[in-house]
Amino acid sequence: MCSVLSNIINQSSKLSEVSEEKFVMSTLSNSTNIFWQESPVGKLDRQKLLNQKGCVVWITGLSGSGKSTLACSLSRELHSRGKLSYILDGDNLRHGLNKNLGFKQEDRTENIRRVGEVAKLFADAGLICIASLISPYRKDRDACRAMLPDANFIEVFMNMPLELCEARDTKGLYKLARSGKIKGFTGIDDPYEPPLSCEIEIQQKDGVCAAPGAMAGQVVSYLEEKGYLQCQ
Amino acid sequence: MCSVLSNIINQSSKLSEVSEEKFVMSTLSNSTNIFWQESPVGKLDRQKLLNQKGCVVWITGLSGSGKSTLACSLSRELHSRGKLSYILDGDNLRHGLNKNLGFKQEDRTENIRRVGEVAKLFADAGLICIASLISPYRKDRDACRAMLPDANFIEVFMNMPLELCEARDTKGLYKLARSGKIKGFTGIDDPYEPPLSCEIEIQQKDGVCAAPGAMAGQVVSYLEEKGYLQCQ
Repeated sequence: MCSVLSNIINQSSKLSEVSEEKFVMSTLSNSTNIFWQESPVGKLDRQKLLNQKGCVVWITGLSGSGKSTLACSLSRELHSRGKLSYILDGDNLRHGLNKNLGFKQEDRTENIRRVGEVAKLFADAGLICIASLISPYRKDRDACRAMLPDANFIEVFMNMPLELCEARDTKGLYKLARSGKIKGFTGIDDPYEPPLSCEIEIQQKDGVCAAPGAMAGQVVSYLEEKGYLQCQ
Repeated sequence: MCSVLSNIINQSSKLSEVSEEKFVMSTLSNSTNIFWQESPVGKLDRQKLLNQKGCVVWITGLSGSGKSTLACSLSRELHSRGKLSYILDGDNLRHGLNKNLGFKQEDRTENIRRVGEVAKLFADAGLICIASLISPYRKDRDACRAMLPDANFIEVFMNMPLELCEARDTKGLYKLARSGKIKGFTGIDDPYEPPLSCEIEIQQKDGVCAAPGAMAGQVVSYLEEKGYLQCQ
């Protein structure tokens, strides 16, 4: 050990290299002769700090099905419990990370892929990452699921009838799609492929939609049951 | 107010739409007739939860200059203080988000842009995001800086002599570059443009490199002075 120490002291200009080999010398305390195995901070450490488990809640569904509403309500409910979440909104990301992508199929696939990759990073950082985007194609969503290990991908299907979404038409897009001013609009002239086995399905009961808080409650209950809202 | 309430109750199938207009009805308590202005969880809320300020620590420098070493050491030091950080490593991201990019100049620029956009999201989430990548071109780094409002971009320049980095050659890449087996390698046959005014510069003193912990300490001191390690 002493010879290692003196070698390292003699090669102080190479300390960074040494540390890349996971072997570093303490300089924060006065005991400069203490060595320890470098243990970079990992997902488990971050989860302990946050007292929660990192995961991705992936909200999929037609435009106007209430994805953003659920995302906001869920984020608020988690925050009120002291849990850290972050919303990746499909529309918002198209102003930033995905601003160089259009709406043709390969661009949509790349759009979903990037969101999946970023969501994975957030989950690894220990956050409950809420991804909210139409993500109409099953294979694109499944590709994102495949990125996440250990069942940390929770797919939430906003299963609302097209008629309801179109009647809401929150953004006025259905009207444009029906009049042919938007081409390839999901649900109108481009398909939406519903999940075959999602973790959570949100739908009307007796023709009535649940309030946002109740929908969020359904997701929070799932997260609680599965142990995501604590570290161990 | 009463007429608004009865309208909403009568239109319960449109509750989600209503909530998108930032006006929702409580269903989590028994008082279903309580309205509140929807306030989605924002950056400030997350910062309060974490008791820190979100920002980007952008570590730039030649291959072998000690970027990853500093990133790991900084992350460990922040964690020991109960602060949440996350490392975006240029090499790692090329296996995921950036795996469809090569090394020609436009791909490098897109690589940096995407890392900048993701770092911005992490900072918005309240984390201290540590981006570690060569990022050789000044304009690419400055474009990332421009994405971050309020001086939340902290550029750390690993100012190590090429000779030292090449002597370390941790990954054996300089050897390959010198023998012509890698083209366009930063520092050999592609330029590294040093920052003109970075927030932190890390360099040798009297020909000796500081230990990783001391380098991290330099960054932590900066973060502390500027108030990033607390919420207010």
